[in-house]
Amino acid sequence: MRQTARAMAPFVHTLRVRYHECDAQGIVFNAQYFAYFDIAMTELWRAAFERSYATMIADHGIDMVVAEATARFLGSARFDDLVDLEAQITRLGTTGITTRMRVLRAGELLVEGELRHVFVDATSWTSTPMPTAVRSALGRFAAPS
Amino acid sequence: MRQTARAMAPFVHTLRVRYHECDAQGIVFNAQYFAYFDIAMTELWRAAFERSYATMIADHGIDMVVAEATARFLGSARFDDLVDLEAQITRLGTTGITTRMRVLRAGELLVEGELRHVFVDATSWTSTPMPTAVRSALGRFAAPS
Amino acid sequence: MRQTARAMAPFVHTLRVRYHECDAQGIVFNAQYFAYFDIAMTELWRAAFERSYATMIADHGIDMVVAEATARFLGSARFDDLVDLEAQITRLGTTGITTRMRVLRAGELLVEGELRHVFVDATSWTSTPMPTAVRSALGRFAAPS
Amino acid sequence: MRQTARAMAPFVHTLRVRYHECDAQGIVFNAQYFAYFDIAMTELWRAAFERSYATMIADHGIDMVVAEATARFLGSARFDDLVDLEAQITRLGTTGITTRMRVLRAGELLVEGELRHVFVDATSWTSTPMPTAVRSALGRFAAPS
Repeated sequence: MRQTARAMAPFVHTLRVRYHECDAQGIVFNAQYFAYFDIAMTELWRAAFERSYATMIADHGIDMVVAEATARFLGSARFDDLVDLEAQITRLGTTGITTRMRVLRAGELLVEGELRHVFVDATSWTSTPMPTAVRSALGRFAAPS
Repeated sequence: MRQTARAMAPFVHTLRVRYHECDAQGIVFNAQYFAYFDIAMTELWRAAFERSYATMIADHGIDMVVAEATARFLGSARFDDLVDLEAQITRLGTTGITTRMRVLRAGELLVEGELRHVFVDATSWTSTPMPTAVRSALGRFAAPS
Repeated sequence: MRQTARAMAPFVHTLRVRYHECDAQGIVFNAQYFAYFDIAMTELWRAAFERSYATMIADHGIDMVVAEATARFLGSARFDDLVDLEAQITRLGTTGITTRMRVLRAGELLVEGELRHVFVDATSWTSTPMPTAVRSALGRFAAPS
Repeated sequence: MRQTARAMAPFVHTLRVRYHECDAQGIVFNAQYFAYFDIAMTELWRAAFERSYATMIADHGIDMVVAEATARFLGSARFDDLVDLEAQITRLGTTGITTRMRVLRAGELLVEGELRHVFVDATSWTSTPMPTAVRSALGRFAAPS
């Protein structure tokens, strides 16, 4: 019997909601979730490379810019909540990646979204293919197709 | 002679990019654009009602929450840039609205996105139809279908 | 034999600098350090009460507002730096507290500051003495006079 | 004929409080006032030079960093409030300036503070005297001693 495609666990980073991230409604301001997504990506990079994102830029001369971001808000995180940020790369392209983001509190899905990043040359800021080492490191957090 | 559908001008609010809204790349941080969208909505409400958003809540006992937000990043605004935030309501539903957002600098499109808002009862926070007065005021910034 | 004044260790909370907390100079934006101070206070409360700040408000019907904040900037934290936030209560008054804050990176002092908080009734927002239980819990992080 | 001390009007920049600048208490978060101070400085520079702060850096090869910031909180600005940011240079030194900041709403003083800036070489980031042209332009917003 052949092994079926194994659903890879997404990368998870947990953080605590800060007071000033909440608005006058007492809940996390919607734009703040996109900052959370960015934090999750930074930590995913650290885990993928066992080095930091800054190191990757220095080593490979490339940077990454956000081309598209989207989020659906299903529930609300509040001050002092511990939330899990789940990130899973759903498309590992030649010059870009797409990552599915989910924000959960104790298993309850609060927000789900998606980020599309494009690799650029760190000096010219023009689109550039991602280096093989980067692609292979990121593969660890890519969902099986 | 019949009057043809007139393309309504979107609502426009202009703001200047603040220093701390830019990140280490020297450009406006992606999550910040969603805060810009929120500012544009506040000003659209002020223009629609000739009164503030807070007044609307007090008068009608309803509030509005963001259900979905999306943005595509085509260019980058920088510190001290003057940017025009364009907002046009593309769907004026019974319990919610969808608004198309565009960020331009001197006519150049930098970001385009969409916000979907849902009306909720200000005390129970359950979905509620928007009052007729609200709907009719917002109609002024709705695109013709 | 008399007990000599024991130099109490300050409360320490460590955090990692987030990308969007840095400005176009590539360093943490000055106002952001005051948000760091606030985070340190939240964690100090959690440690003092072994419960959260929100619990304290619910239990005692009091809240705390910032009356004064100051910071001197000696160095610069950068993206991805791990910084230690040190908080030590230097004055435990009847209706308020003063806390000395320090931000360090690998032992290097980057920022030092001070926060003065005043206790207020959570409904009337008028100045109110801090409950005995609160004072005694905070005493753990107060510097010996 | 004696010259009488002329009380110079401080520089004033008016802004509207944004929704996400308020915290769960419904008032502007304390750290946000330091961001307001920064905005006031940017606008003071624009007024002083009739050119932008960025132009000054490009022309003179100097930058300015915050060495000290302080604020006393007397009242609270709320969402949608129009607040006046007053800035007056109280010390025009050789390598730095001190600016008194005040935040008012309809004449009511909400916050008062002070910023101390130091001029640095834009490449080496070492302290440097301010150019004569800069000093003379800033003089317009300096309080008489």
